[in-house]
Amino acid sequence: MNLMNAIEKLIDQALEEDIGPADITTESLVPLDSLGSGEIVAKESLVLAGLDIARKVFERLDPDISWQPRYRDGAKVTTGATIVEMFGNLGSLLSAERVALNFVQHLSGIATLTRSYMDKLGDSRVRLVDTRKTTPGWRVLEKYAVRVGGASNHRIGLYDGVLIKDNHIAACGGIKTAVARIRQRISHLMKIEIEVTTLNEVREALAVGVDIIMLDNMTPSEIREAVALIDKRAMVEISGGVTDITLEELALTGVDIISVGALTHSARCVDLSMRISASDN
Amino acid sequence: MNLMNAIEKLIDQALEEDIGPADITTESLVPLDSLGSGEIVAKESLVLAGLDIARKVFERLDPDISWQPRYRDGAKVTTGATIVEMFGNLGSLLSAERVALNFVQHLSGIATLTRSYMDKLGDSRVRLVDTRKTTPGWRVLEKYAVRVGGASNHRIGLYDGVLIKDNHIAACGGIKTAVARIRQRISHLMKIEIEVTTLNEVREALAVGVDIIMLDNMTPSEIREAVALIDKRAMVEISGGVTDITLEELALTGVDIISVGALTHSARCVDLSMRISASDN
Amino acid sequence: MNLMNAIEKLIDQALEEDIGPADITTESLVPLDSLGSGEIVAKESLVLAGLDIARKVFERLDPDISWQPRYRDGAKVTTGATIVEMFGNLGSLLSAERVALNFVQHLSGIATLTRSYMDKLGDSRVRLVDTRKTTPGWRVLEKYAVRVGGASNHRIGLYDGVLIKDNHIAACGGIKTAVARIRQRISHLMKIEIEVTTLNEVREALAVGVDIIMLDNMTPSEIREAVALIDKRAMVEISGGVTDITLEELALTGVDIISVGALTHSARCVDLSMRISASDN
Amino acid sequence: MNLMNAIEKLIDQALEEDIGPADITTESLVPLDSLGSGEIVAKESLVLAGLDIARKVFERLDPDISWQPRYRDGAKVTTGATIVEMFGNLGSLLSAERVALNFVQHLSGIATLTRSYMDKLGDSRVRLVDTRKTTPGWRVLEKYAVRVGGASNHRIGLYDGVLIKDNHIAACGGIKTAVARIRQRISHLMKIEIEVTTLNEVREALAVGVDIIMLDNMTPSEIREAVALIDKRAMVEISGGVTDITLEELALTGVDIISVGALTHSARCVDLSMRISASDN
Amino acid sequence: MNLMNAIEKLIDQALEEDIGPADITTESLVPLDSLGSGEIVAKESLVLAGLDIARKVFERLDPDISWQPRYRDGAKVTTGATIVEMFGNLGSLLSAERVALNFVQHLSGIATLTRSYMDKLGDSRVRLVDTRKTTPGWRVLEKYAVRVGGASNHRIGLYDGVLIKDNHIAACGGIKTAVARIRQRISHLMKIEIEVTTLNEVREALAVGVDIIMLDNMTPSEIREAVALIDKRAMVEISGGVTDITLEELALTGVDIISVGALTHSARCVDLSMRISASDN
Amino acid sequence: MNLMNAIEKLIDQALEEDIGPADITTESLVPLDSLGSGEIVAKESLVLAGLDIARKVFERLDPDISWQPRYRDGAKVTTGATIVEMFGNLGSLLSAERVALNFVQHLSGIATLTRSYMDKLGDSRVRLVDTRKTTPGWRVLEKYAVRVGGASNHRIGLYDGVLIKDNHIAACGGIKTAVARIRQRISHLMKIEIEVTTLNEVREALAVGVDIIMLDNMTPSEIREAVALIDKRAMVEISGGVTDITLEELALTGVDIISVGALTHSARCVDLSMRISASDN
Repeated sequence: MNLMNAIEKLIDQALEEDIGPADITTESLVPLDSLGSGEIVAKESLVLAGLDIARKVFERLDPDISWQPRYRDGAKVTTGATIVEMFGNLGSLLSAERVALNFVQHLSGIATLTRSYMDKLGDSRVRLVDTRKTTPGWRVLEKYAVRVGGASNHRIGLYDGVLIKDNHIAACGGIKTAVARIRQRISHLMKIEIEVTTLNEVREALAVGVDIIMLDNMTPSEIREAVALIDKRAMVEISGGVTDITLEELALTGVDIISVGALTHSARCVDLSMRISASDN
Repeated sequence: MNLMNAIEKLIDQALEEDIGPADITTESLVPLDSLGSGEIVAKESLVLAGLDIARKVFERLDPDISWQPRYRDGAKVTTGATIVEMFGNLGSLLSAERVALNFVQHLSGIATLTRSYMDKLGDSRVRLVDTRKTTPGWRVLEKYAVRVGGASNHRIGLYDGVLIKDNHIAACGGIKTAVARIRQRISHLMKIEIEVTTLNEVREALAVGVDIIMLDNMTPSEIREAVALIDKRAMVEISGGVTDITLEELALTGVDIISVGALTHSARCVDLSMRISASDN
Repeated sequence: MNLMNAIEKLIDQALEEDIGPADITTESLVPLDSLGSGEIVAKESLVLAGLDIARKVFERLDPDISWQPRYRDGAKVTTGATIVEMFGNLGSLLSAERVALNFVQHLSGIATLTRSYMDKLGDSRVRLVDTRKTTPGWRVLEKYAVRVGGASNHRIGLYDGVLIKDNHIAACGGIKTAVARIRQRISHLMKIEIEVTTLNEVREALAVGVDIIMLDNMTPSEIREAVALIDKRAMVEISGGVTDITLEELALTGVDIISVGALTHSARCVDLSMRISASDN
Repeated sequence: MNLMNAIEKLIDQALEEDIGPADITTESLVPLDSLGSGEIVAKESLVLAGLDIARKVFERLDPDISWQPRYRDGAKVTTGATIVEMFGNLGSLLSAERVALNFVQHLSGIATLTRSYMDKLGDSRVRLVDTRKTTPGWRVLEKYAVRVGGASNHRIGLYDGVLIKDNHIAACGGIKTAVARIRQRISHLMKIEIEVTTLNEVREALAVGVDIIMLDNMTPSEIREAVALIDKRAMVEISGGVTDITLEELALTGVDIISVGALTHSARCVDLSMRISASDN
Repeated sequence: MNLMNAIEKLIDQALEEDIGPADITTESLVPLDSLGSGEIVAKESLVLAGLDIARKVFERLDPDISWQPRYRDGAKVTTGATIVEMFGNLGSLLSAERVALNFVQHLSGIATLTRSYMDKLGDSRVRLVDTRKTTPGWRVLEKYAVRVGGASNHRIGLYDGVLIKDNHIAACGGIKTAVARIRQRISHLMKIEIEVTTLNEVREALAVGVDIIMLDNMTPSEIREAVALIDKRAMVEISGGVTDITLEELALTGVDIISVGALTHSARCVDLSMRISASDN
Repeated sequence: MNLMNAIEKLIDQALEEDIGPADITTESLVPLDSLGSGEIVAKESLVLAGLDIARKVFERLDPDISWQPRYRDGAKVTTGATIVEMFGNLGSLLSAERVALNFVQHLSGIATLTRSYMDKLGDSRVRLVDTRKTTPGWRVLEKYAVRVGGASNHRIGLYDGVLIKDNHIAACGGIKTAVARIRQRISHLMKIEIEVTTLNEVREALAVGVDIIMLDNMTPSEIREAVALIDKRAMVEISGGVTDITLEELALTGVDIISVGALTHSARCVDLSMRISASDN
């Protein structure tokens, strides 16, 4: 599912579930040839993401809409600012308004939260990444919003990266067998990451050679010890229990990558509104 | 889109976007006939919603899974409690884990937040309702979670309820014309709601006879005045700027209905984890 | 499923099932660049409905078609009149002809029959409505044709209106419980209709307060008695056994609404033909 | 689109358009574990078609339904007879009732009308066939119902049979070229039919050799003349203006095939009802 | 599934499976507004088929592409020749390249092989046809490529032609019953073909009258004997074991039709490459 | 698109395109309750791939089929051997036969060709991989068949691996910028491969540090020189112009990986047949 298709599919579903058989109110009251203008306004400070999707939503109902954005995805928008102005069929503006806003408020929420994490990291060379804790149906869109916010993506799904966990190891009888077996199966373009919870497991992983070692839910001091032990022989990722409060301390432990589920699973929507007015025509 | 179909569609998309061509790690390392058990555990106190969807996710990959839930949707679950135990093909448990959790954590987040609003309302006879500010693709599921949390639904979309806003009125030249025209078009099974921002508009609405008057973004004292003016001749709904802090005061103004977008647009996911262990077989 | 999507879906299916792998005859015999003109002609007097769908059918095969309608949906067209003239690729006109006509003849059949019922009602203030007895896959289109014919729609489906029947009552132990329970569940924008067969049930329904009472299969005299009993405390609908012969008498009983399944389940297609001629080019 | 897939697709659409987000009434009032029985009853004399589709509709909502048909497709059912008895989840019976009946009443309507035409033909060796004047989305189902009624199918669509019309001939410069060209293109398993309106065209067609000659809208005496001229060198089909009144006379003209659009485009639905009763459980 | 829809569906799938969530390399490295030109070059001598599909692939990613073909489907292209030149968005050219080539190399492979068989047949009046041994999902496209190569199609599928095999005969008790029964069921536009393996079966088939007799896996001398026996009373098709070596001999046996599965199941892709260069803009 | 979904989708399309509205012959001649047995037989020596897909094809038409395979995917099957025996509804066996065989003959063709390349490589430590030159719609299936044949997969598509080509480099102004920029964008789980055509480019690539260097269309002696230059600082892949004749020589040049498009684009189908016989029941 690529980004463009995922967007089109979600737009279809969103219009279907919102408009259903008909927007009865608008269909009954707004003459088919009425024109109007609209603007989407930020009701709070935010990092914009998903604006082009809003455009596509309106265009599905009115291909002739005129769309004049004042910001692009990634821009910081202050409270009260107009994000985009549009002009076109009034009924279409009214019928598409809610769905369009629902997309932008959701994705901008993720971009805004991500940016706040990035700001905390400041000049750190640590890479902040997301997880697979995303809203079903929204994976590639939410991962896009994370990039808009300035962070990086972990693997998109179970297919474009290898992450060996304890159950995988148990199921094939040890780290050594696991790593050997998967190296056979995967494309030579993929790296191997392994999740560990103890220093002993770190040593085992180093012995067989992996590309990335993920330290799961370790304390800052354990992390520092692991980093020293690994000594650049693999990249180091930490995961679990990272919050906006602990982030800065963890970034100083020497790890390469910090993954944070909250970027996608705990972002609330930003507050947007749309002002519509009928044209005197 | 009914609830059952919406769920099946989202499950399909979610598995597709997460597993894609293959769960390479699991496919490579876990023998096809390995068995295992799993349990979903609450990492915080929550109101459960969407558990049956998790079941369906696992069953898509392993129809023979054994599923033993300890709670039902709507139950309050305390930190550390096991929500469900399951047993079946180990590879399937590992491949479906994340998608299953992503559903339950999202819907339980909404149910949990809704319940906390309901608790604030206590014995009030006021009806708490949601809005159309939902995640695209998730409308009927999120509205279900709101009901699980104890609140009621506003209309599902633009097709199953009439809500006349200022632009609708402007487009057809006045409240009187608008109400007359829509009464012609809609089924005799539907009521008419109108959104107003001033007491004058309240008077106009009462003059033509509508079923529900929505007071948009009024202060508590304006609301009280409007309620007195309406005097049971229509139901009264308030909307806009309702928070968990202002809720209790607003509930005392005499209105019938309070709609709160935050129930769906600002709920964060609850924290769940899944423990999986391979069986000795 | 909104009207626009329902139309597009049906057009796809219709072209697929008619053309399949190829319109062998036309593909073999008509040069790709041949042009032609066509006109759809009424072979009997009719009320037009669905003309824009015919246009969409042709445009699917030939986006460059020129389309000049002489009537709009809702117009009364007399025998022999040309409804629309078109000009474009000859092969496309030939391949799309049958499917386009199949849409218009079906929907105009419903609009024409509905108009004849409306004519019988004359100046009566009674509302004539359709039922859910529609052709599977065609619900919103056939309900549209009913509106084109001048009548109103009952609920679209089971989701946008409440109609409590005897089995619903039996299943929850009485009218009182049923009405109370459903009032909890439904949006405050919906009314409640209940189906009754005896005057006693009418009394029970009035006691708990419902919005509409449907009298099922009652005789004119029973209906008059029920109307007197209800005395404006609820709207009154009659259903069952209404024909074009009994309609006028029933309209005089004082009821508000008459629902007639025949509008959709017994309309025959109107007779249309299409004249195509190759251009000398 | 084969029959099985076409049925499944239409069932999906039909349930979607009827139930939509939810059957609010039933969902609110009927306990999830209530059981009930139902029976479909003929309210008029009819030829049954599509009963298995009704079964599939119920099974979509309740796979455990017990289904005991008393008739099979093709059977003549008298007024008042019970067609099928069923037993299962009460809510499912109530929610699926209307859609199930909508299928059977439509297809039985076609089978019943077709049978009445066949009865008129009596022992005639003439083959009665349908046309492509079918309800979009229903082609293979309606053609099935025609067979159930005892008649035969013309081609299913534009892909499984060749029918050369005047515009095809004009577009390639004459009957001779047309027939030669199409013989090149089509599979050796297909015959060639040509539509003519004059005896001169009949002669041209015979000269180049075609398999079937369709006489379009000719009078009985013209038809007789054409039949004599053709003299078994091709099959003869007549089309246009055939009614239940003219059928018998036309059958005596010596033609092989009579095609009648009314079989599908003018059949009204038969009258069925479903009686449901809750079980005492 | 008609050719146009089949193509669009396959293009969708092909882009989805190749690009998936994103063409990471191109998306990361090629500025969104870079332009470029490309040309598809024949790396071996070939008969071109499917060029318009390549165009559609590029247009899906870049509707503004300029496309200048130098050859049309059916043309013989020599090694080193440029088949088409194009100009447009550089990223789109790079992302669509592989999928576009995959279509053309596959279909041209079939057309090229078919042409080589046709060349062997020379002026023979024998009709060379394909079989149903095609790549699943590609039936109508591969049959199109066969026509491009100069041969004819056998039936497209099981629905547009009748071919009675031994098991069909056994299942209904003899050739006579089989032929009578199927004549009842099929449209009068279809012929009947029967597969036989012995001269006795040929005689039985002739006795009941069929349109085509298929001699399955007979030797040249048996074929000659059968042809003599049939003596123009039916068309004769041979099938099985036809290779480019035996073709010429078999064509001299007097049969009408030779079907060759290898045309579709054993054609290898032709060798194409695409040269892309960035524009200096 | 995962393997399971890709298979189901292709099976649907394949049955749709082959059976269409109906398998007329079988439907007309084989009684609905006839039973039969079948066996798939190898008509040449082959490596089996895709047998489970054949099973799914039959099960779509007859869920009760009994299926007794004698080989598993990956097995070498000799001429004349029975691959699987089955028993079930005769009509279903006849209608599904061709589609089922079409899958197995195609995938086994790839597996068989791949195995022959692997046999040539013998004990070499070189990794043989496929390319993206696959049949549109078949990517994950054909890559599966390559693994069954014993070789490895290159990336599945443009999304799960990075391969920088000359145009990518040109578009962003040099190897150094390109590598830096993509490292920012991709997940830390991915490696970077770069395609080069000269030793100078090899040096540039080594200077910035990449994971894999692909030598495009170099001669054996150039390859040896490049391998020496790279000296284990990156993996080395060769691509282009590899045939079953040059393979052995190239494997001795010291490269790590050889990619061969022919594995998928030039494999012909293996020869299978199915013997069906009706049961005496």
